[in-house]
Amino acid sequence: MKQNDFKFTVISQQKNSRAGVFGTPHGEIQTPVFAPVGTQATVKSLTPKQLKETGASLVLSNTYHLYLRPGPDLVQEMGGLHNFMQWDQPMLTDSGGFQVFSLSEMRKIDEDGVSFRSHIDGSTHRFTPEKAIEIQEKLGADIIMAFDECASPYDKEYSQKAMNRTHRWVQRCVEAKTRTDQALFGIVQGGIFPDLRTESARFISELDLPGIAIGGLSVGETKQEMYSTLEIVNAILPIDKPRYLMGVGAPEDLVIGVLRGVDIFDCVLPTRLARHNAALTFKGKLNLMNAKFAQDKKPIEEGCTCYTCQTFTRGYIRHLIAAKEMLSGTLISIHNIHMLQQLMKQLRQAILDGTILETALEFLSGYEYKSGKFADTLINKEDL
Amino acid sequence: MKQNDFKFTVISQQKNSRAGVFGTPHGEIQTPVFAPVGTQATVKSLTPKQLKETGASLVLSNTYHLYLRPGPDLVQEMGGLHNFMQWDQPMLTDSGGFQVFSLSEMRKIDEDGVSFRSHIDGSTHRFTPEKAIEIQEKLGADIIMAFDECASPYDKEYSQKAMNRTHRWVQRCVEAKTRTDQALFGIVQGGIFPDLRTESARFISELDLPGIAIGGLSVGETKQEMYSTLEIVNAILPIDKPRYLMGVGAPEDLVIGVLRGVDIFDCVLPTRLARHNAALTFKGKLNLMNAKFAQDKKPIEEGCTCYTCQTFTRGYIRHLIAAKEMLSGTLISIHNIHMLQQLMKQLRQAILDGTILETALEFLSGYEYKSGKFADTLINKEDL
Repeated sequence: MKQNDFKFTVISQQKNSRAGVFGTPHGEIQTPVFAPVGTQATVKSLTPKQLKETGASLVLSNTYHLYLRPGPDLVQEMGGLHNFMQWDQPMLTDSGGFQVFSLSEMRKIDEDGVSFRSHIDGSTHRFTPEKAIEIQEKLGADIIMAFDECASPYDKEYSQKAMNRTHRWVQRCVEAKTRTDQALFGIVQGGIFPDLRTESARFISELDLPGIAIGGLSVGETKQEMYSTLEIVNAILPIDKPRYLMGVGAPEDLVIGVLRGVDIFDCVLPTRLARHNAALTFKGKLNLMNAKFAQDKKPIEEGCTCYTCQTFTRGYIRHLIAAKEMLSGTLISIHNIHMLQQLMKQLRQAILDGTILETALEFLSGYEYKSGKFADTLINKEDL
Repeated sequence: MKQNDFKFTVISQQKNSRAGVFGTPHGEIQTPVFAPVGTQATVKSLTPKQLKETGASLVLSNTYHLYLRPGPDLVQEMGGLHNFMQWDQPMLTDSGGFQVFSLSEMRKIDEDGVSFRSHIDGSTHRFTPEKAIEIQEKLGADIIMAFDECASPYDKEYSQKAMNRTHRWVQRCVEAKTRTDQALFGIVQGGIFPDLRTESARFISELDLPGIAIGGLSVGETKQEMYSTLEIVNAILPIDKPRYLMGVGAPEDLVIGVLRGVDIFDCVLPTRLARHNAALTFKGKLNLMNAKFAQDKKPIEEGCTCYTCQTFTRGYIRHLIAAKEMLSGTLISIHNIHMLQQLMKQLRQAILDGTILETALEFLSGYEYKSGKFADTLINKEDL
């Protein structure tokens, strides 16, 4: 491990937005950063070479899925996750908590941990904070996550109970951790309730971990609730630790998240949209199955420098979709991830240049959102 | 069109095997050559960049599929097939005949052409020799095929009827052709019957077309029947024209085909096998879903220089298959096509070196075929 691993340096700050560098054993992460998701040790339909060409640095993989298949022992035997999937840049694994809680009928929570059934074969398993750390140590990502409980956002009693349990569990995770070449991040919970979020942000901050995640958002609450929760939490979190907003990846949310002081994001959105024929552009989403694109000789987005836009027309991609050719998913995934990487680069540069407010407003004013411009429909511009 | 387009030069010949060069408007093809198949204007799961890296030069696409979707007018409007799918090297389209005849219950043949129903939506369509040429001229491949009738190989009466019709139709194709930058190949038919094959080879040879295909093989006959038919036909075909064995791609058949004087092959085999988890190696096929590969740290084939083998273990690919990740199809397709390209390169070099018999025997002696070595089970070595 290099001397400066897990050191976070804020290079430039403008209002709450930060441009930083986070050191990991697999290289530095320039923040703000968007991490694509490789659920099962692969970002769906892309080779690591194609993924690297999108500009991606940090990649997330899911502990729940890898635990079930191929299993942490096998991944460890194969040299760890980086080696297994041949991603030589920084990686992050979640704790499996979110996926396990999402199983709803198929899991049972107690103070010690969670018993659940596999979505693959119905077999029974158990995660505890200690187990989540053990698995993540075998997987070997650079950043690992504490085992937390994510409540439904509007249930205050449950949110409080889940938050308190999350606080007890993060301490057990700290205790259980043995590897020094992995950074353990704690997770702030508390639903949409300002008092709970405040309490949780303070509690997690005091643990002095190398990074802090904001969990339990983008799970059913409104965008305004998400944005105001970010404001409350980030006002408390220490400025010298990276802040990771989990599971968020819509372009408008990345922009607002950066304005609210978030440094790291992850989401399946760009690849999931791609498999459903939707392309992300700086002007909004395009459904490429639309017949109007059949003879369109333009690339997905004019001026885009990704392989897909440099090579193929909308018309060709529309044909691949209509013909049910899997290459469409690959080509749109390349574009979508590249688009989010470009967006993050522009935001980072704007912070360095001191123009983040103008850059954010310009993007949001041009971004089509539910048949309006995002800046007009969802944001009070003074709030930026 | 360059001066030397469609000129075929035999650089070296050893017994019946030939190493040659065939000039096309999109570059020279070094023969013998194996063409992967891009049925719907895409070699399934691969970008043109990945395909090029396998060493592929000539790519085949299917007239029947492209006629139905996206339609020849659209492809023409988009600048032709090369531009549409962004393949800048030589291309070949079949005539649609084979696919249409494969529809069995859904087609009706008469002297003028074939009426058929689309496998996509049941709509009715009609191909004639003239129509097949018109479509292929709109698609714009470098090599186009005459519209032929492929009979079932053991029915002599039908084989003769189909052969005679194929002979009448190829003349109509020659008449219908208007573009000078495409090479029209005629097709030899005649089932497994030496007298019919002899007659057909003579008839097609006399047309003095820039290349000649051998059709109606690999459609249910035995390997010995295929090999002896090749011997009969190639003894008649002119030596100064490329010979194209349609729809054949098993490694053992490529080797025997080259020994019998074939210059061009195509087949969906490498990509279809890949989607069914099977890898082609110089020692035989591997089913990578097999549990014994789960922790195998070796590449698919040791010493292989393809991206897949240079990057990933069998264990990782086996995980992708088990997890139903589409990347497995991409990675195995890359390897399988690369393997056939390497095989063809080795055969070509052996012809140039005068060692084709030894090279062929060495390959066939090491190649596992139905739990034996191909050279021991299926070939009388003196026949090589």
